[in-house]
Amino acid sequence: MVIFIDMDDVIADTYGKHIDMYNEEFNKNLSLEDFKSGEVWQNVPEIHQDSIRLHARTKGFFRALEPIKDSIRILKELSEKHEVFIASAAMQFPNSLKEKSEWLDQFFPFISWQHRILCGHKYILKGDLLIDDRSLNLDKFDGNTLLFTSPHNIHENSHDRVNSWEEVARKLL
Amino acid sequence: MVIFIDMDDVIADTYGKHIDMYNEEFNKNLSLEDFKSGEVWQNVPEIHQDSIRLHARTKGFFRALEPIKDSIRILKELSEKHEVFIASAAMQFPNSLKEKSEWLDQFFPFISWQHRILCGHKYILKGDLLIDDRSLNLDKFDGNTLLFTSPHNIHENSHDRVNSWEEVARKLL
Repeated sequence: MVIFIDMDDVIADTYGKHIDMYNEEFNKNLSLEDFKSGEVWQNVPEIHQDSIRLHARTKGFFRALEPIKDSIRILKELSEKHEVFIASAAMQFPNSLKEKSEWLDQFFPFISWQHRILCGHKYILKGDLLIDDRSLNLDKFDGNTLLFTSPHNIHENSHDRVNSWEEVARKLL
Repeated sequence: MVIFIDMDDVIADTYGKHIDMYNEEFNKNLSLEDFKSGEVWQNVPEIHQDSIRLHARTKGFFRALEPIKDSIRILKELSEKHEVFIASAAMQFPNSLKEKSEWLDQFFPFISWQHRILCGHKYILKGDLLIDDRSLNLDKFDGNTLLFTSPHNIHENSHDRVNSWEEVARKLL
């Protein structure tokens, strides 16, 4: 089986890093539990929203993300049984490209460069399964889909949902 | 029609840049006409070959490439009639990722970030046509193929061949 796996908010904790940076900038003490739904920026006062929108353009942002819980272990097992590709819509942020490559080298060295894809649209991917946190990407994918839960997609129900990498493992391993 | 177009030696003159750098390093005066077949490094004395192999890892190499003749004009016309994606196996050289993005911004600004793909394997692409200079990529592509002529592929005959962007235009426009 050919499996494509998104990076941000699927294997890399982008949402959590936004919260950390927000806390630091505005001297707050919020945690994931304070974000019930929506994007990070939608959960903060309007005058702070632009600041969050700039995070992804900040040098070092993508290099500093924490891996999502259990993603390393489960992806390693998945990649021994299936053909696993990382597919990130990274072309929007050219500064992130090298950071994402280095981040994968650090945390997912078992995913070779041949199995890493930085793209825009994901409907050009040909394979069996796409795991992504964005319905926008899943809607147009020509194969099976799994929506990886994030506060911003909590109200969506047009795709099978997984809440953790343990759940992915139970489905695919 | 969804068309994927490779970068190196298809829209970007990588081969020519290797020759220029070789000339400069070793005080030679070679031109493309001196390279009848094979890779650039296969055409120079063995003691110079390692030097050429390092070019692609040199900072600025991919940013400094010249566009292949007519590629800008024909791609612009193609992209008005078809859905055109750039697909480069760039993940091998992480230092090249940003340079390639900036190079496309300069010469192909009409190809949006959503239509740029930096990948390894190309058999994961789903579309109608792949234009590439490497049979390796074309062999496994699930669609039509065009081999863009380069000295290194001159003896291959397993794919339809185009020798110039004018020829591509005659086929597709």
